Amino acid sequence: MLTYSFEDKGKDSLYEYLYKQIKNDILAYKLSPGEKLPSKRAFAKHLNISTITVENAYIQLLAEGYIYSVPKSGYYVSDLSSTKALEEKPAAKRVVENFAEDRIFADFTSNSTAKDSFPFTIWTKTLRQIMSDYERELMVRSPYCGILLLRVAISDYLYQFRGMNVEPEQIIIGAGTEYLYGMLIQLLGRDKRYAVEDPGYQKITRIYQANQVDCCHIPMDNNGVNMQALEKSESDILHISPSHHFPTGIVTPVSRRYELLSWAAKTNDRYIIEDDYDSEFRLVGKPIPSLQSIDVADKVIYMNTFSKSLSSTIRISYMVLPKSLAALYKEKLGFYSCTVPNFEQYTLYRFIEQGHLEKHINRMRNYYRIQRDKILECFKNEKNYNKVEILEENSGLHFLMKVHTDLSDEELMLKAKENGIAISCLSQYSYLEENATEHTIIINYSGIKTEIIPEAVDRLFNSLWDK
Amino acid sequence: MLTYSFEDKGKDSLYEYLYKQIKNDILAYKLSPGEKLPSKRAFAKHLNISTITVENAYIQLLAEGYIYSVPKSGYYVSDLSSTKALEEKPAAKRVVENFAEDRIFADFTSNSTAKDSFPFTIWTKTLRQIMSDYERELMVRSPYCGILLLRVAISDYLYQFRGMNVEPEQIIIGAGTEYLYGMLIQLLGRDKRYAVEDPGYQKITRIYQANQVDCCHIPMDNNGVNMQALEKSESDILHISPSHHFPTGIVTPVSRRYELLSWAAKTNDRYIIEDDYDSEFRLVGKPIPSLQSIDVADKVIYMNTFSKSLSSTIRISYMVLPKSLAALYKEKLGFYSCTVPNFEQYTLYRFIEQGHLEKHINRMRNYYRIQRDKILECFKNEKNYNKVEILEENSGLHFLMKVHTDLSDEELMLKAKENGIAISCLSQYSYLEENATEHTIIINYSGIKTEIIPEAVDRLFNSLWDK
Repeated sequence: MLTYSFEDKGKDSLYEYLYKQIKNDILAYKLSPGEKLPSKRAFAKHLNISTITVENAYIQLLAEGYIYSVPKSGYYVSDLSSTKALEEKPAAKRVVENFAEDRIFADFTSNSTAKDSFPFTIWTKTLRQIMSDYERELMVRSPYCGILLLRVAISDYLYQFRGMNVEPEQIIIGAGTEYLYGMLIQLLGRDKRYAVEDPGYQKITRIYQANQVDCCHIPMDNNGVNMQALEKSESDILHISPSHHFPTGIVTPVSRRYELLSWAAKTNDRYIIEDDYDSEFRLVGKPIPSLQSIDVADKVIYMNTFSKSLSSTIRISYMVLPKSLAALYKEKLGFYSCTVPNFEQYTLYRFIEQGHLEKHINRMRNYYRIQRDKILECFKNEKNYNKVEILEENSGLHFLMKVHTDLSDEELMLKAKENGIAISCLSQYSYLEENATEHTIIINYSGIKTEIIPEAVDRLFNSLWDK
Repeated sequence: MLTYSFEDKGKDSLYEYLYKQIKNDILAYKLSPGEKLPSKRAFAKHLNISTITVENAYIQLLAEGYIYSVPKSGYYVSDLSSTKALEEKPAAKRVVENFAEDRIFADFTSNSTAKDSFPFTIWTKTLRQIMSDYERELMVRSPYCGILLLRVAISDYLYQFRGMNVEPEQIIIGAGTEYLYGMLIQLLGRDKRYAVEDPGYQKITRIYQANQVDCCHIPMDNNGVNMQALEKSESDILHISPSHHFPTGIVTPVSRRYELLSWAAKTNDRYIIEDDYDSEFRLVGKPIPSLQSIDVADKVIYMNTFSKSLSSTIRISYMVLPKSLAALYKEKLGFYSCTVPNFEQYTLYRFIEQGHLEKHINRMRNYYRIQRDKILECFKNEKNYNKVEILEENSGLHFLMKVHTDLSDEELMLKAKENGIAISCLSQYSYLEENATEHTIIINYSGIKTEIIPEAVDRLFNSLWDK
């Protein structure tokens, strides 16, 4: 445990001295971001001081942002990635900001998967096995497209769970979909016009913009991207999530899918990037067949990630290229090294092969179903439930809630925040104002702890309508 | 061990049947690339057949390219990353190609670090520790620029070993320098003209070209890039390796360094990318101070990689941005996720912090020095040593050998290959013909096993001059 001597404390009170010592260790990186501090009681006993002294030191550190608290867990060292910024802010302002953050009781804006859900023990066990069994292979440079074993495992997985017939040669493995988007721009060319969904996942727009390619925004109708607007846009590459659009949750029906494929088939240059980021988490019925699986003209580039299904700290994504593009990729971009370390590639290969991925996804799907049911049940018990409308709740991780209100979206968010609830609105995900829908809250429930759902829903409804 | 039953062998001979079974398992990926096959004797005993039967099956597989042999080690499954290509080739051609490859006795073209040199045991031990000690932190998403602990460790390392004063906030960690080059293009802008060294590391040119940015080639003089040519090129961004140019080995002296910095200071848009890929391996004296360390105008972007100093399967590189660019990076590109998994980041952090990196580099430097001395000693014993000239041998991993000959570079390479020696020539690394120097062989000795050096040198000299 952390140990401090109080011999040199001088004129400082015990708590002041302890606070300074811990603060210095944080600034000197002797205590690492995310590191848990000892419990107040155990620390006090260890240092032979009173619990209240430790508590006072912790409160001061908390107020100044050096540590943060996790309810029912304890205190952790903050990540001061920009220590400069922290030092330059007047203490008062920091305290205020810190308190503001502390007051968030439930965050419905984050669609990150629950941190505790990662099968850490199985993953690390698999990694340990790999280190013993694959010593030689781990030192052999991965091909540009990823190691064959993993590509075969992914191809089997896609066949079993998505009904997709994909050769390992069509698969490119990379350190995250963001990285692969950049590779696709290099593959397909900068002279192309890229089209994205509006509303949509804003990061995709930012990536196209950071790469300075021509990127236009296509409005959505009830069935997905609007075909007329798409035709009119004169785009070459269409980037979509037809199986579960973010954030509207729209599932593009098969008729529209064929329209999209026929759009793509019209010229040689056209391609569709199918971002299938959360198809595993569809809560009712079978996953929607992918666009790739009904594409006979080699026009669909399929993308998916394990950062979503496993953990954002696992940086492995992949794309499935039509065979002609796979050959072009090899020729044009095959000189690039694979960005995923062998340790992770082999571990994921064995994790999939031994059925752990499947089990994990099933477990998570159940968990999300319970979460979703719990939230909807709490909604129904609310007095003002008749003033909202729930949209698209059969896909996992999030749904929409249309609110009958006269308040603006900004006012909705502000009122919720005052009650400790962070929400985002559909309108925030629209790039063009004309494509924005008002009064529609996005309920990301994947990261909310089950036990706080009733209070979180209560707080949300109480903030939207006075009691 | 692998087990096959011979019950269904039909009319096949034992060896034919065994060969087919193993081949099918390789094609069905039941045997993985790089996997070691059982020794002939043990396998024969296990299957209750004769050693010669196993040997015949192995020879057939070897001839067809399904497996490869490692002298004194055994047989391994080939990586058929393009099985299609293999299947489509007529068997005869495959055998010929395979034999041709087999005949390479020593490869002086690869500058990869010796595979066996990676401190596998310490690395995996550290990784195991990290899995126990950092369970919580491993699940916390890394900041875009990499985890603070690792950036602090790198900043300490740069201070101790390169005399560089770098704040952790200036460091961006990414999955390889190739990835970071792409990020730099996004940061600095596509409208800039990028200049690279000619001759130089061709991959850098390919990356700029794949990103479709304007890339020009600056000739080298004895002190590095030629200043007049640089001025004339009207470039904005200069990408160089001033501490050890590849492949000439030129070390840019301090006077030229100040000229370069003064060139960069002339306009706001100019920057120098300093690629310091192998400064650790300078064999005599201290490492050359980096350009970054004498830059007072915030004009140098420093890059280095652990893929070189540790292993190419470790995909961690980093760049040090001037403070103003670090702020711009955060604003413009901070939305990108870090491409290096937390497992690797924490492992490398502890590996550095516990002094393993330093020890490893010292060990490798000694190893390369022994290699270099051994090679030079063997050269001196050659009858035709007076017909060659050795250039720039004080930096690690490779040096140049100028040959007094009437043969063309193609003829030199062909003759060496006929004697089982793969070499490359300086002229191959020139983009513009006018910058090419003839009759200069690049001797990459980092990957050659010490014990075969005498024979390799003999074969090389015998191929250049008839005995």
